[in-house]
Parts: sequence; structure tokens; C-alpha cells
Amino acid sequence: MATIRDVAKRAGVSVATVSRVLNNKGYAHEDTRKLVNDAIKELNYKPNEVARSLYKKKSRLIGLLLPDIRNPFFPELARGVEDEMQEQGLHLIIGNADEKPEKEIDYIQTFKQNNVIGIISATNHAETKLYENLSFPVVLLDRITGSYPSVYADGLDGGKIAAQEMVRRGSKRIALLRGPIELRTAQDRFKGAVDELCDANVDFQVITSSFSFHDAEKMAKTLFEKFPETDGIIASNDLSAAAILHEALRIGRSIPDDLQIIGYDDIPLSKLLFPSLSTIRQPAYDMGREAAKLLMNIINNKPLAQKNIQLPVTFIERQTTRKVEEND
Amino acid sequence: MATIRDVAKRAGVSVATVSRVLNNKGYAHEDTRKLVNDAIKELNYKPNEVARSLYKKKSRLIGLLLPDIRNPFFPELARGVEDEMQEQGLHLIIGNADEKPEKEIDYIQTFKQNNVIGIISATNHAETKLYENLSFPVVLLDRITGSYPSVYADGLDGGKIAAQEMVRRGSKRIALLRGPIELRTAQDRFKGAVDELCDANVDFQVITSSFSFHDAEKMAKTLFEKFPETDGIIASNDLSAAAILHEALRIGRSIPDDLQIIGYDDIPLSKLLFPSLSTIRQPAYDMGREAAKLLMNIINNKPLAQKNIQLPVTFIERQTTRKVEEND
Repeated sequence: MATIRDVAKRAGVSVATVSRVLNNKGYAHEDTRKLVNDAIKELNYKPNEVARSLYKKKSRLIGLLLPDIRNPFFPELARGVEDEMQEQGLHLIIGNADEKPEKEIDYIQTFKQNNVIGIISATNHAETKLYENLSFPVVLLDRITGSYPSVYADGLDGGKIAAQEMVRRGSKRIALLRGPIELRTAQDRFKGAVDELCDANVDFQVITSSFSFHDAEKMAKTLFEKFPETDGIIASNDLSAAAILHEALRIGRSIPDDLQIIGYDDIPLSKLLFPSLSTIRQPAYDMGREAAKLLMNIINNKPLAQKNIQLPVTFIERQTTRKVEEND
Repeated sequence: MATIRDVAKRAGVSVATVSRVLNNKGYAHEDTRKLVNDAIKELNYKPNEVARSLYKKKSRLIGLLLPDIRNPFFPELARGVEDEMQEQGLHLIIGNADEKPEKEIDYIQTFKQNNVIGIISATNHAETKLYENLSFPVVLLDRITGSYPSVYADGLDGGKIAAQEMVRRGSKRIALLRGPIELRTAQDRFKGAVDELCDANVDFQVITSSFSFHDAEKMAKTLFEKFPETDGIIASNDLSAAAILHEALRIGRSIPDDLQIIGYDDIPLSKLLFPSLSTIRQPAYDMGREAAKLLMNIINNKPLAQKNIQLPVTFIERQTTRKVEEND
């Protein structure tokens, strides 16, 4: 592998000059700059990022923290972040906090010690002190705290739309799942739905649920035991909705005739379920892209049009809800 | 944040001494060592890993390369790697190659430039030159090439078991899905099933399929159009099986009475499908753990009992296959 010395020799300049050109620091004549860049290309020289980051105090690394890579919503977010970062010539490293604060702390340390230039975090503890006193910017993704710039989807509207679609399709005894209390995004969609259901002439029950695979099956069983009369379920995410759909079919409920279900997220698996899941779509990939753009604008000191970017959600009509005339 | 100077001052020693203690290089009296370590604790000093890795030429970073984080099988592998690495006091960074060689190259560069001490790779291009001339060890996960140490599950046996279970449960016209040709693990399970089907008194067809969500739906439609008589399907992975189950139910096939389906992997979603999916379980989490252990043994120059570790697979009987008497 070519070293900085080889580049200097090929370009006929000193190592210090190559370093100045590489790091865009100090004076170098345009002709010299060209000589050095040509030599870099010819020799396919890759600067050692560790050495460079020490010198420049800057790397080209971005850290992305996900709360749970087993929930298919988060890999979608990650794909959007990745594509944008790659287009901007940056490297992304991913950490999975696994919903544990100690893992999150560990990853933030790792990112810090490897001189990332910014973090995008979608974890559950952004309210805490973990992110204080960092020397690089943090952007929250699918999370809102007020303290940090963020990109998220419109949860209030999502909850509202889910409740509206459920009611206009005729459900009268609705079970509303409430996601993790500590997550503002989960509570927004919950509040949006509650407000709408309060205004409608329907009964509704609230069931608190986590977002994980692990808890979904048990929650689904409990739901039908406690509320056998339920004729419509608004889930807090698609994983919960999948578990509910499974349990409903297992106990012989007819979907959507006797029971309607609306999920939240639109993870890839939603359309593979049978009947396929009607859901509120969060534009996960686009959210990831937007978060990456926002972070890069902050890093590059560009003026921000908005510090908090909210993307719209949409109802995806599939087979777990009944058809209605569009001019109803 | 405390610096190495603060530590030296508190311990009453020179910066060079602190550095010697930190890096376990050169002489330092035991008492001095204690003074320094106490000062580090009191000041909660965190050494800059970039500076340390330059000095020691070693970091505590491991790179994990996944082929497609959207396929739920891979996050399971990652969880196993993570837990083992964390217990060993190491940091893991994850890269998603997205089944694209150029992304894989990019991640290997990033890992290299950030001085990882080893890579675990589960991508599709480990046969290529990408991994040559690296200065740190590589362990393959869920992949086999012969060139690198690896951890994988017994695909030949997996395919064989799937075919046996399908045949003994009475299917006579079987469709066998063949995963990506370039993946030895996919071909092993395929060959295992072919061998078994050739020995049984049944008809079978082969359909080639990728492992992605994107292609699964189309493949499922084609399958039933071309082979409407099929009464048993052995899928190449659970995602394909989910798409097939969806399509089968959509066109009114009765499962498992009229059509049996066996998946491969046992991803978390398999039991949430309805009917829940019978499948061949690969112990993904354990595979991840074993790969991490193998890599650490190589890094620490420990003698290896085995360079290639094969884990067993098991048949998980759920509802897409018919019941048989166990003494059949």
C-alpha cells in the first residue's frame, strides 16, 4: 500500500506539503496541489484515517444508534441514513443499543473515542444526560425531546387518521394500544387517536404495550381475553398488529368482517401477512435520509431552515379493514 | 474531561509513565501502576482511542459486515456477536453491505482506516479479493469459502430434514426453492433436499429465488402459476416462505391440508404468521456468539480446536405442515 512518503516522492514535494494538501490546511500553490492530487490518484493512496483524524481532529465517520435492530422498522431508517451518507462520501457505523442504557453509553463512548463527527440517534434515552457535553452534533431520528434537532413523522396525525379510518369503517368497540410511555413518538400517535375517538360515538379501551416481538404475543392473548367484544384494534406498531392478527385468526375471528385491525409503521412484512395489514405508513427510508441531511448541514455550519423536521404519514389500505365508498 | 496530563499530575508521575501504564509497555513499578490507575478512576479518565490505537497499533474495535439488515435473520446473528463482544470488553461496529460489492469495499476500508482488530463478515462476496492482504483476521459467519475460518449451520442436514419432513407428511408434488447460486450455505440446503427427494417416491420441481423481500412476492405468484399442482413447498428462507404462504392463502389453497410449506431460518416473524410457519431453525444468535469467540481466539493467538464450526439445525413443527404419528 502506498504511503504518504511515496506520494511526496512521486509529486516531487515534501511530506509536509502532501499533508497540507490532504488536510486543506496552510498554503499550497494550485500547481502543487494538482501534482499531489495526481500522485494520490496514480498510487491509489488511502490516507490513514486515524492519523488524519488526530491531525485534523476530524474523521469522516458518522455514528448511528438504533434502539433494536430486530424490529424491522429500524433497518429501514438505517438504509435511508446510509444512502445519504454514502452519497456525501461519509462512512456510517451502526450501533444497536438493544433498548439498554448501558449499551447506549458504551456505543456513545466508542463513537467518541473513534472521533465521529456526528451522531444520529433513534434510541429511547435521548432525554437523559448521555448526550450532554459531546463535542459533535447529535440529531434525533424518530425521536423528539426539544433539546436536539430531530426528524420524525407526524404521530398526532397518524393516530388521528388511524382512528378516523377505523370509525368510518364501522368499528364500535375499539381497543387502542398505547406504546412505551417514555417515547414521545409513541405517545403522539396514541394522543392523536384518543382525541379522535373521544369525539366519535364509540366505546374504546386502552391497552399498554411495548414495541418488541417478545411481548407482542402475550399482549395479544390478554387483549382478547379481557375485551372479547372488541371489533376494531388500533395497534401501536406493526409488530403488535401482526401478533394481534395471528391471535385473532387463531381464535376464529373473521377479518375484516367481524374485527378490523390497523397497524403503524408499514414495515416490509405488513404486506406479506394474510390478510395483508392495513396500516399507517411512516416514511422510514425518507426519515433516515432527512436526518442524515440535517446532520450534515449542522456539521457544515449551513443555516437550517428547520431544526425539527416532521414528515407526513399516510393510511395504507389493505385487507384488515373493510372497504367503504370513497364519497362517504 | 480529564486529560492524560491531569492523570499524571494527580498521580505525581510523568505523562510518559501514565502512557506506559495505560499501554502496558515498558517498565513501571507496581506502586506507580497503582497510583496511576487510582488517578484514572478518580478522574474518570477515558483515553482517546485514536491516540492509543496509533501508539499501540491496536484498537478494541471489531467490524461486523452484514449483507442485508432488512432480512430479519441477520439482526439475530448480530445480536449474538454483540453480546459476546460486549462480555469480552470489545466494541462492535456494524456495516450493512446491502448486497452491493462497492458498499462492502467501502466498509472494509472504513474498518481498516479505523484500525479494527478483526472483522466478522456475513456478506456474499467473501470469495473475492476484498478480504486479501488485510492486517487483521477475518471470520466468516453463515458463509463458507474454505479460505477463512467460519461459523455456519449444517445446511446439508437442514435441506435433508426439510425434505424428509415434507415427504413423511404426505406431499407428492413438491416445489423446491433454490437460493442464490453464489452462496454456499444456500446451495448446501438445496443439495441436502435434492438428495433426499431423489431417493423418495415423489415428483419435484426446482425454482430459483433470491433471499430478498423485494423478489419474494413475484416468485410466489410465478410458482403457483407454473406449478398449480404443487402440494408441498420447501422454501429457501423464511421470507420466501412468508410470501408463498400469503399467495397460497390469497388464491384459496388450504394449509396444511391441501398444501404444506416449510421455511428456513426461523426468524422471529415465523411464529407470528398465520398459520404459523413450520421451518428449519438455524441457531442465529448462537452462530453470532460462536463467530465472536472464534475471532477472539484468533486475535489472542489461542490454539483453535476447529477452524470451521458447524452448528446443528432443527425442524420446528408449526402449522404449515400436517401432523403425523411420531412412531410412523
